[in-house]
Amino acid sequence: MLPNNVLNWGHSKSCIRELAAYGTARKAEIGEDKVFDFSLGNPSVPVPDCVNEAIKDLVNSNVPQIHGYTPAVGLPGLRQAIADDLNRHCSVNISPALIYVCCGAAAGLASAMKALLLPGEEVICFAPFFPEYRVFTEGAGGVLKSVKPDEALQPDLEDFRNVLSEKTKLVVVNTPNNPSGVILTADTLKKMSDILRDAEARYGHSIYLVSDEPYRELVYDGQPVPCIFDFYHNTIMCYSFSKSLSLPGERIGYIAVSSEADEKDDVFACVAGAARAMGYVNAPSLMQRVIERCIGCTVDLSTYRENRELLYNGLKSLGFDCVYPDGAFYLFLKTPEPDAKAFSERAKKYELLLVPSDDFGVGGYVRIAYCVSSEMIRNSMPAFKALAREYGL
Amino acid sequence: MLPNNVLNWGHSKSCIRELAAYGTARKAEIGEDKVFDFSLGNPSVPVPDCVNEAIKDLVNSNVPQIHGYTPAVGLPGLRQAIADDLNRHCSVNISPALIYVCCGAAAGLASAMKALLLPGEEVICFAPFFPEYRVFTEGAGGVLKSVKPDEALQPDLEDFRNVLSEKTKLVVVNTPNNPSGVILTADTLKKMSDILRDAEARYGHSIYLVSDEPYRELVYDGQPVPCIFDFYHNTIMCYSFSKSLSLPGERIGYIAVSSEADEKDDVFACVAGAARAMGYVNAPSLMQRVIERCIGCTVDLSTYRENRELLYNGLKSLGFDCVYPDGAFYLFLKTPEPDAKAFSERAKKYELLLVPSDDFGVGGYVRIAYCVSSEMIRNSMPAFKALAREYGL
Repeated sequence: MLPNNVLNWGHSKSCIRELAAYGTARKAEIGEDKVFDFSLGNPSVPVPDCVNEAIKDLVNSNVPQIHGYTPAVGLPGLRQAIADDLNRHCSVNISPALIYVCCGAAAGLASAMKALLLPGEEVICFAPFFPEYRVFTEGAGGVLKSVKPDEALQPDLEDFRNVLSEKTKLVVVNTPNNPSGVILTADTLKKMSDILRDAEARYGHSIYLVSDEPYRELVYDGQPVPCIFDFYHNTIMCYSFSKSLSLPGERIGYIAVSSEADEKDDVFACVAGAARAMGYVNAPSLMQRVIERCIGCTVDLSTYRENRELLYNGLKSLGFDCVYPDGAFYLFLKTPEPDAKAFSERAKKYELLLVPSDDFGVGGYVRIAYCVSSEMIRNSMPAFKALAREYGL
Repeated sequence: MLPNNVLNWGHSKSCIRELAAYGTARKAEIGEDKVFDFSLGNPSVPVPDCVNEAIKDLVNSNVPQIHGYTPAVGLPGLRQAIADDLNRHCSVNISPALIYVCCGAAAGLASAMKALLLPGEEVICFAPFFPEYRVFTEGAGGVLKSVKPDEALQPDLEDFRNVLSEKTKLVVVNTPNNPSGVILTADTLKKMSDILRDAEARYGHSIYLVSDEPYRELVYDGQPVPCIFDFYHNTIMCYSFSKSLSLPGERIGYIAVSSEADEKDDVFACVAGAARAMGYVNAPSLMQRVIERCIGCTVDLSTYRENRELLYNGLKSLGFDCVYPDGAFYLFLKTPEPDAKAFSERAKKYELLLVPSDDFGVGGYVRIAYCVSSEMIRNSMPAFKALAREYGL
C-alpha cells in the first residue's frame, strides 16, 4: 500500500553515496590517509571569510527577525542583489520580480519540474548528467529522455533533434558539467536554441530550457560561462551558492525566470505554487541575509585549479585518456576497459574510489572529484600508476 | 499548457497572507502603531540566548564542515538528541534510526503525504485546521476530507467515523491547534485511536496518523501535551523548532516514525524517498548543529502567557465569546454575526486585523494571533470595545 516509486527512491542509494559509504568504512578500517576518496562533490575549500563574518555580525547586531519568516519568494534586498549580479553578466534584463530564492539547486530543479510538467510530459537531459535529475523528473510525474554526447562531450545535436517530441516540455542543461567539467560553448548553446525554437514552432507549445548552474564560477582559464538567458527566451535558471561559497549544507540558491519567457508571470507563479505544495516555506532566513552581503564573492579557486593540473597531468603522463575539465571540480577519465563498473572495482584494490559513469547516463568513464586536498592527489599517484600498469598503459 | 493546480497554488494567497499584506500597506499609510495587526503567527519573543551563542561558537571554533553536506536524514548526534528528548516524554521507545531531520513542519508534512499517498487516497483533517494542509494533500495527489468539531472544538468523533472510508490513508492532528489554541485531550486521542484501529481492521490496510506539533511546548497551565506515540501504533510525528525556539525562518524540524508502525522501515524509506524527489538534500547544516546544542531549551513563554490573559480577559469583559486557548499563540473568537468575513471586514474599520475562520474549514470565528507585543494588545482594547458596541455587546 506504499507508493512503489517513492519507496524505491528511499531505498536506492546513488552509486556516489554507496561508494562514499564504502570509503568511510574503509578509512575506519585502514586509516584516513590510506584511502584515496574521490567519490563526493563536497567542497574542500573553506568558505570565504565574508560568510562567517556576516553571520557573526548579523547575530551580534541584533538585526530584528533575522531568524523570522521571510516572504516565500525571498527578502526583497536579496532578490534585487541577485538581479543586479546577473545583470552584470547578461544582456537580457533580469527582473527581481522573477527571482525566487530557494533551498539550493536541487530544490530549484524539483520546483521547476513540478511547476511545468503535466503527467507524462518529457524532460530531455544531455548525457552525462547528474543522476538526481531522473528522480526529480519522475517525482514530478515526468519522463526523462537522454541525449548522447559527441566525442568532446558536447551534446550530439543530431540526437537532440531526434529525441525532441511533442511531449517535450523541459530541457535541462548543466554547465560547467557534473560529472565531466565540460562547459557548453556559445556555439553549442546557439545551435541548441535554434533547434528548440524550431521545435516550439513545430509542436505549437512552449519548451522550457532549465539551466542548472551551481558550478558557474568554478572555471579556471579565465573564460566566462556564457549567460544562458542571452540564447533562448523560455529559460529558467537554477543556481546554488553551494559551490561558489562552499556552503552546500546550508541549502541556498535561486530560480530566475527570463523576462522574455512566454507567460513569464504564470511560469513564476507555478514555481511558487510548486515550492509551496512541496512544503518550502522560505529559504533559510539568516543565510538569505548572509548571501545578500556576500553576493559576488567566491571561494579561493587556486586550490581547485592546482588540483586540476596535478590530476590531469599526472593521469595523462600515466597513459590515461581524460577529458580536460574547463570548470567544476570533476575530471572524467575514459576507462581503459569498456565496463566502467569493473574498472571502478579494480581501482578499489588500490584504495582509489572513482565513480563509474553508468548512473550519469553514459558508459566507459569514471568521475574523479578533485575537491580534495592537493596532498591526497599527490599521494594517490602511485596507486594510479599501479592501476595503469594492470591495463598495460 | 501549465498545470492548473500548480498555477492556482502560486496565484492564490492564503487569507492570512492577504490580510498581512493589507496590514503592511496600512501601517505605511497611517503609522505602525495605529494598526492592530493580529494576522500572522510570526513569533514575537526573541530566540533564547543559547541559539545565538551556539551560532557564534560554532563559527568561531572552526568546526570542520559546519556548512557542508550532512547525511540526508540528518547528523547522527542530532538524531540521537531528538530521540533522547522524545524518550523523556513518551512511553513508546523512539529510535534515532526512525528520525528524519527536515526543513520545518511544512516540509515534514509534505514529505509524509508524498511518502504515503497513492493517487486519490484520502487525508482526513479535523476542522479548524491550517489551510496549507489542503495544498500539501493535493500536491501529493491526495484528496482532503474534513471532520467538523464539537462545541469545545475537539473533533466530533461521530463525524470522524462517518468520514473514514476505505480510501483513507492519512489522518492529521494538530495539537495545540492552529487556529484555536485547543489541546486534544488524552480522552479524545484514546477514542480517536480506537476508531482508527477499527477502521484498519475493517478496511484491511494501515491508516497513518500524522501529528503536526510545532506548538507542543507552547502551553501555559502546566499541563503536558499527551505523547501521540503512546496512543496509536501507525503514527508519524512532524515537529518544528520554529515556535519553541522562535526561528521559523530557519526551517528546521523533524519527522519521527513510531517504532511500532507497520512496515516502519519502509515508511521511513518512503519519507526519505519523498523528500529526495522534492529536492530536499539535507536540513540546513549550521542550524542542525545549533539544535543539537539547544534541544530541550525553549523561548521565554511568559510574554505569550501574559498576552493570552490580557486578550482573553479583555475580550470576555467586552462581551465577546472566546475559546480559552490552552496552548499555541492563537485565540479563536466566536463572531457575533455568522459571517466571519463580514466581521473581519468590519474590524478593519477599527484597524483590527483578524483572520476569518473560513479557510480553516469552519465558519463563524476569527483567529487572533497574540504573538505580538503586550502593549499592542492593551492599545487595541478601545478598538475592540468600539467593535463590540457595533454588535450591541
